Amino acid sequence: MSYWEKVNSISDLKALSLKELEVYADEIREHIIDVVQKNGGHLASNLGTVELTLALHYVFDVPCDKIVWDVGHQSYTHKIVTGRRDSFSDLRKNGGISGFPKPSESECDSFIGGHSSTSLSAALGLARARDLKGDNYNVIGVIGDGAMTGGMAYEAINDIGECQEKMIIVLNDNKMSISPNVGAFSNYLARLRLSKRYAKFKHNLKRGVAALPFFGDKLVGMFERTRDNLKSIILSNKLFENFGIKYYGPFDGHNIKNTIEIFKQVKNENRPVLIHLVTNKGNGYEIAETDAEKFHGLSPKSEGQTYCFSEIVGSKLCEMAKTDKRVVAVTAAMKSGTGLEKFFEQFPERAFDVAIAEQHAVTMAAGMAKGGLKPYFAVYSSFLQRGFDQIVHDVCYDNLPVTFLIDRAGAVGADGITHQGILDLSYLGMIPNMTVLAPKDGDELEDMLEFSLTCDSPLAIRYPKSFTAKYEKNTLASVTEWETIKESDKNKYILAVGNRALDAAAAVDDVNVINARCVKPLDTKLLSKIGNGSVVLTLEDNVVSGGFGASVLEYFSKENANVKVINLGYNGFVDDMNTESSLRTAGLCGENIKKLLK
Amino acid sequence: MSYWEKVNSISDLKALSLKELEVYADEIREHIIDVVQKNGGHLASNLGTVELTLALHYVFDVPCDKIVWDVGHQSYTHKIVTGRRDSFSDLRKNGGISGFPKPSESECDSFIGGHSSTSLSAALGLARARDLKGDNYNVIGVIGDGAMTGGMAYEAINDIGECQEKMIIVLNDNKMSISPNVGAFSNYLARLRLSKRYAKFKHNLKRGVAALPFFGDKLVGMFERTRDNLKSIILSNKLFENFGIKYYGPFDGHNIKNTIEIFKQVKNENRPVLIHLVTNKGNGYEIAETDAEKFHGLSPKSEGQTYCFSEIVGSKLCEMAKTDKRVVAVTAAMKSGTGLEKFFEQFPERAFDVAIAEQHAVTMAAGMAKGGLKPYFAVYSSFLQRGFDQIVHDVCYDNLPVTFLIDRAGAVGADGITHQGILDLSYLGMIPNMTVLAPKDGDELEDMLEFSLTCDSPLAIRYPKSFTAKYEKNTLASVTEWETIKESDKNKYILAVGNRALDAAAAVDDVNVINARCVKPLDTKLLSKIGNGSVVLTLEDNVVSGGFGASVLEYFSKENANVKVINLGYNGFVDDMNTESSLRTAGLCGENIKKLLK
Repeated sequence: MSYWEKVNSISDLKALSLKELEVYADEIREHIIDVVQKNGGHLASNLGTVELTLALHYVFDVPCDKIVWDVGHQSYTHKIVTGRRDSFSDLRKNGGISGFPKPSESECDSFIGGHSSTSLSAALGLARARDLKGDNYNVIGVIGDGAMTGGMAYEAINDIGECQEKMIIVLNDNKMSISPNVGAFSNYLARLRLSKRYAKFKHNLKRGVAALPFFGDKLVGMFERTRDNLKSIILSNKLFENFGIKYYGPFDGHNIKNTIEIFKQVKNENRPVLIHLVTNKGNGYEIAETDAEKFHGLSPKSEGQTYCFSEIVGSKLCEMAKTDKRVVAVTAAMKSGTGLEKFFEQFPERAFDVAIAEQHAVTMAAGMAKGGLKPYFAVYSSFLQRGFDQIVHDVCYDNLPVTFLIDRAGAVGADGITHQGILDLSYLGMIPNMTVLAPKDGDELEDMLEFSLTCDSPLAIRYPKSFTAKYEKNTLASVTEWETIKESDKNKYILAVGNRALDAAAAVDDVNVINARCVKPLDTKLLSKIGNGSVVLTLEDNVVSGGFGASVLEYFSKENANVKVINLGYNGFVDDMNTESSLRTAGLCGENIKKLLK
Repeated sequence: MSYWEKVNSISDLKALSLKELEVYADEIREHIIDVVQKNGGHLASNLGTVELTLALHYVFDVPCDKIVWDVGHQSYTHKIVTGRRDSFSDLRKNGGISGFPKPSESECDSFIGGHSSTSLSAALGLARARDLKGDNYNVIGVIGDGAMTGGMAYEAINDIGECQEKMIIVLNDNKMSISPNVGAFSNYLARLRLSKRYAKFKHNLKRGVAALPFFGDKLVGMFERTRDNLKSIILSNKLFENFGIKYYGPFDGHNIKNTIEIFKQVKNENRPVLIHLVTNKGNGYEIAETDAEKFHGLSPKSEGQTYCFSEIVGSKLCEMAKTDKRVVAVTAAMKSGTGLEKFFEQFPERAFDVAIAEQHAVTMAAGMAKGGLKPYFAVYSSFLQRGFDQIVHDVCYDNLPVTFLIDRAGAVGADGITHQGILDLSYLGMIPNMTVLAPKDGDELEDMLEFSLTCDSPLAIRYPKSFTAKYEKNTLASVTEWETIKESDKNKYILAVGNRALDAAAAVDDVNVINARCVKPLDTKLLSKIGNGSVVLTLEDNVVSGGFGASVLEYFSKENANVKVINLGYNGFVDDMNTESSLRTAGLCGENIKKLLK
């Protein structure tokens, strides 16, 4: 019987010997590889955390002790050993378990973790609650070196160092976030990995000095007196000590025995400590280890002939950059996911990966626009939420021509609740000066990118992961005008935003189907032709509140038109790991549309 | 003739002698004190930057060189010397100049700056644009030590250190942001101010060693060989060097002569440099210097009997905290502005100032809620925009009972465009699980705070700075139900959100006036009583898009009710420095309402 089968609980795990733990780790690794290859998910990052997770559970006791996983790309082993082994084969499937820590799934998941750099803030909140309530448990934040590049993590470090709350930070340094890490912090960590030589140098210097005749003793005394000085010089080489956080490391995060020892040692420290573990992303799975970026996230094989919007973005931007020197591309550690790889290869000096730092990305792009460039920030919809204030304050007040290429908009399927891109039409639509477009396919996306070159104000183009190429190319109208896909003499209209809504509408007959590709501003010329007594159905892969449909409703209300408007979209969070069923929930399916238009 | 009058241009300024510059600085200081006392504004921070601003303009040439001012609390002298001396007396008045750098006001304002920690990102964008376009100018970001606690600044530092773009960072270290600075970074700066002794120690050590007989030379050789090691140890004591940014300082920021010398010296460095200037907030104005927090922002004397919502928040929270041990308060460096001073005095161990770090504040509060506390995050409306993603991801997905006390909601008057709190009803209203309340006066705010104790999910209470106490206390209904203020037998209804809208509505007769204090969810019981043929006017001190009125419209549309809905609110940014006129623009005034309901 394998340990995979034998270990049914945390206490079973704690009963294993170190040797057995190592075998168990290998078994877990095999299962992760197996399931992720079938279901998709985060492979490399999860292979890197097997040992450190076992060590954590060996030393600490969840759910009493609280482990806060940052981003959760690292949490599969945690899920397996905390009662979810049997449902692990249904990872990222409806009815199965989610790919991220999710309190509603298990009390062992002490905090939700889908977006980056949140763990230290959440952990500090838990630690403060513990102390004020007189409780007695450990709080452990596990954060990757990539997530450490997010400003929010720094804000937390600033607070933790000041308040000296008892908590443990595990820095899982796998030397890359999704793409190889960029940024000065990453360079800093690289130096830190070599830092042991500093300590050795100090030791040797002191020994050398002590051996000197006559003056040796005096010098050693000088060393002793100034020990505090020297100590602070040497320790302060470590960034975290500068911030008041006790630093231990760097250690090999794949050595279970040592990692357990370290955790045991710091468990009772009454102040914040940081343990720097160096791990290999993709450890134990050769291909994943050598090409960890590619294996960061895997998608299951797709069915049907679909194309990828990100790829179109990449190619088209390259084409535009060739003839327009102003074109520059910005990504926040998502070069590959947003399709910018080719651009980075062809125009390295005009491509900017700013690390997991969406706030900075937005404002830096605004500065570029102010300086006369044409910046394109390609970003996932749910991650752009981080830059909301910067879009308002730094881009839109001053009406700067930054273009946002918003990928993974709408329902995202297996990535689940934290990654749904269903708020962007609302949070962008409310901002004055912002134009919002949504293409129905790759041709239209290219037209929109062409349009962006002439657009002298903030522009957002939002699209989901994929599209089917089923529409004729329409080159007549401007992308800010709507396009009639299907005509009918009935006074029934479907105004559909983006390819998914349009695909659903296209299944319906005897109705005017309009591709409302310019979400903001509305095409009032077309709207004004919709006569009294009409029924208008708006479809969007977005929440109804503040979305496209709401602005159509507002239009007709203002015009005193006797038009019945029905808004379809989401009315709550989408806790669903399947795109099709998400769309059905929102009513974006032929069946529901037919029913409503009957 | 004074220098104030004599200096009409930057070239006049550059022609002054150092002695004359010092006199000019004193004159500027006097004028700032004079104008701010009349018009309100930021006094202490602006008094701290007089000399450094003169030094900047002495060495650099705007608008060719780009100075990006962080927050802009520091930019009055810059405004005065760049052509706005004569309009300075109309600071923060309509028709006058704004209190923040504003590109539409002068080409010398290279970037907008109302929210904190944006300058380094914007400056890096400008620097990158300069290089790609082959331009040749200097980019200088001026950032306070307070703004350095915002995560966004760290994200920028991470990028700047990596890319080594030529730019100058001026760290204006006045040892406090608005409140005395908190956080480990602040402690770090304090240590840095003492750091000269490290360099001295190293120097003395080497001298001492060299003087040793026999072995001295050998040891010095050892020093030389390991110079790189030693250097990196000593330099890396400096946080910024760890991040690849050349550090100079600390220097006295009130010494014009030296500051000019330093700027001249670094002007041609071809890499990022940081100049650490230590200044006194409120310098030269004794009261402001000793009580800089109080003098950070001054309001002109108010007319009429108004009361302050923030004060009610402070008192009521203290009262609640006495009987409910779960109550804790969180602020992001706005203890005084949000009314929490008393709470910090009475419950220091339950009061948390996390520095200018709204993202961290939101998630830290979520962690506290998860740990069983009842956290209240008091924050200005426009600053909470920074925490939008965290509200969605860390608070609302998991439905955690964090209460947001949203101050300065709606039009803010003299603080101008960047501080308008006119998006919150929309960006909060779209988030599932969030309840949104808006009180009409202090009594109602207290009832809402009482309600918050029983509310087990995310809650936002939003209010402007002040209210008049003109309404009867209504204790009958729950705060989640609406309150009828005025009844009429006509089928005309005003649904008003918050005190300002209600005050405007109260001026109108022959209409049902409803206090729609629960903005989300809607009081559908009351709404269902509004019959066909009615006219409903919604009033909100917020943008129309995605706001309260939009949800009322959606309600009636869904119900197929024949009700005419008119939504009043803002339809764009509010670039207005007077609250009354802002409200009039939105139509929130008796005159307009009467006209519409005729």
